[in-house]
Amino acid sequence: MLPVGAKIGILGGGQLGRMLCVAASRLGFKCHVYEPSRNPPAGDTSAILTTAPYTDITALERFARSVDVVTFEFENVPVEALEFIERIVKISPSRHALQISQDRLIEKKFLNDLGLETAPYFKVENRVELTNALKKIKFPAILKTRKFGYDGKGQIKLESEENVAETIKNFSGSDYILEGVVNFSKEISVIAARNFNGQIACFDPGENIHINGILDTTTVPCKLPISIITDAILLTSRILEDLDYVGVLGVELFVLDNKLIVNEIAPRVHNSGHWTQDGCVVDQFEQHIRAISGWSLGDGSRFLNVTMKNLIGNDILEVSKLIEEPSKSIHLYGKEEIRPNRKMGHVNLVSEKA
Amino acid sequence: MLPVGAKIGILGGGQLGRMLCVAASRLGFKCHVYEPSRNPPAGDTSAILTTAPYTDITALERFARSVDVVTFEFENVPVEALEFIERIVKISPSRHALQISQDRLIEKKFLNDLGLETAPYFKVENRVELTNALKKIKFPAILKTRKFGYDGKGQIKLESEENVAETIKNFSGSDYILEGVVNFSKEISVIAARNFNGQIACFDPGENIHINGILDTTTVPCKLPISIITDAILLTSRILEDLDYVGVLGVELFVLDNKLIVNEIAPRVHNSGHWTQDGCVVDQFEQHIRAISGWSLGDGSRFLNVTMKNLIGNDILEVSKLIEEPSKSIHLYGKEEIRPNRKMGHVNLVSEKA
Repeated sequence: MLPVGAKIGILGGGQLGRMLCVAASRLGFKCHVYEPSRNPPAGDTSAILTTAPYTDITALERFARSVDVVTFEFENVPVEALEFIERIVKISPSRHALQISQDRLIEKKFLNDLGLETAPYFKVENRVELTNALKKIKFPAILKTRKFGYDGKGQIKLESEENVAETIKNFSGSDYILEGVVNFSKEISVIAARNFNGQIACFDPGENIHINGILDTTTVPCKLPISIITDAILLTSRILEDLDYVGVLGVELFVLDNKLIVNEIAPRVHNSGHWTQDGCVVDQFEQHIRAISGWSLGDGSRFLNVTMKNLIGNDILEVSKLIEEPSKSIHLYGKEEIRPNRKMGHVNLVSEKA
Repeated sequence: MLPVGAKIGILGGGQLGRMLCVAASRLGFKCHVYEPSRNPPAGDTSAILTTAPYTDITALERFARSVDVVTFEFENVPVEALEFIERIVKISPSRHALQISQDRLIEKKFLNDLGLETAPYFKVENRVELTNALKKIKFPAILKTRKFGYDGKGQIKLESEENVAETIKNFSGSDYILEGVVNFSKEISVIAARNFNGQIACFDPGENIHINGILDTTTVPCKLPISIITDAILLTSRILEDLDYVGVLGVELFVLDNKLIVNEIAPRVHNSGHWTQDGCVVDQFEQHIRAISGWSLGDGSRFLNVTMKNLIGNDILEVSKLIEEPSKSIHLYGKEEIRPNRKMGHVNLVSEKA
């Protein structure tokens, strides 16, 4: 168990890092954030900030030697940086979990090997494979990069022969998968934590609405039969245990009739878990810090009903109106520049449980 | 209204500053903490830290010019520092409110002038005044320094002729008051906020237990008739309005039969308001930041029952046990050195409202 005053290293300085730092401070820890870009959101709440690229071995070594454990808030940290750091200090969750989530093909195989259902998919590296895959997966289908995709980036939806002709013409070949579209009735996510002793704590599953590939709202409780909710939690536990996972994991699921299909897993705190900041006494950020610090997990019971709404791009300009509404709890990321599709903050609309 | 990304200056770098920085970050603000001592708790959560004495005019000026508003987390900031800063940037709450609370004699006169009852007291500056005051105030009485007292420091309880003889012998004369002891049945406090528009929001009054002059626990709800609770809130509003106060104010009250006696006021967030971190969606720290930033106040409704317990000195060593109890929410201040009577953290024990 890390002692009070221990130092936690966080790779990535975005809003997730910012909120991890806050949770760590609550538990008496100091955070050292490592982020390539200047003035990151997490720089405002960390004790120490290193600004350097992930390829700077000297900076990475200094960072690794200054902390007692390392975690990440961002999936796309280069694996080489993690390999280097883990020779010096423990990284939680493990590089293995990160590598699975970094590649859609590996991720889907991992899930299928665990007996969990995913959307149908085919590896696509050239025009022939794309043509063959399209014959097997009917419209609509989605061509996705295997790596570095997020918030709907790196994806093309194929809905007609015209789309296909166009796409095949421009397809130069690379690491892609073609995925079938699941006609789900609901999309939910489970945010769960596991610590070094194997203790697991799941938050109530939330129901997600995406707009243009970006999470718009998460609502708890989700309106689903208890049997489905139980399945979602058991399935998440199976993933955590198989990976010998330490930290918080987000699992996105499609609900199709009475069946659950895993969309993707994220080896970190997750946007769809932000409701826990106002719905629970111990939120996902604290649960993550407790797990990676060798602490017992906290009580993630939900005390309130919550709808979390993301503030994307210009939504942030509405803040002066939002603060007039007392049932809305506001969380802003301190980002200087407003850009389209940029996550600027979120709002939790709370109400008492019936 | 301060825009997102604005900078808030905080005088004092203790745990109150640490938690103010956290609340400010949630609202998208950056904090600049000014603190004379090294490695202060608030240094871990602030964007900028200045380490300099309150008499360093150059550092004070640089600090004042770097921020959009200044507040304080510590009553005993020298008035000269505030006078200097307020020529450059607005300070909330005002220097006037701070000066009242810095001097027990001025504070009690201010309260009496508002029609509020306090313990009986006499100004005591020399042996003659002390002897005369003791004739009027029966045992037990408390001799208190007018300034710089906190957590029971600067106080002598006089319970017998022996105490008095001893005290008079050693009394060299200075700024003191002699105060009568109130035989209260309960001690409560009201934590309230007021913003620039005069909007006021009070948290539920909490019941306090002190041990050796230091707050041990605060419990909400306090078990008192609604009429007394209403009086406590009205009385607090009167203080806020008279001072044209902006920010959070703590008012400590003695309950004696069906009467309220004001013990003291603190022009800042208050230890007895720490339960709001887990009992409310908007806590006292966020309410303070909203008030001084010209925002509307948030919803301070209480959603849970809470008992806050301070971790004093070696209590912090129990953390490894406390984290095993999921209903306890832990808040640690990151202080490196354990000292007797030093506030190291607090724990909020939560339960659902009946």
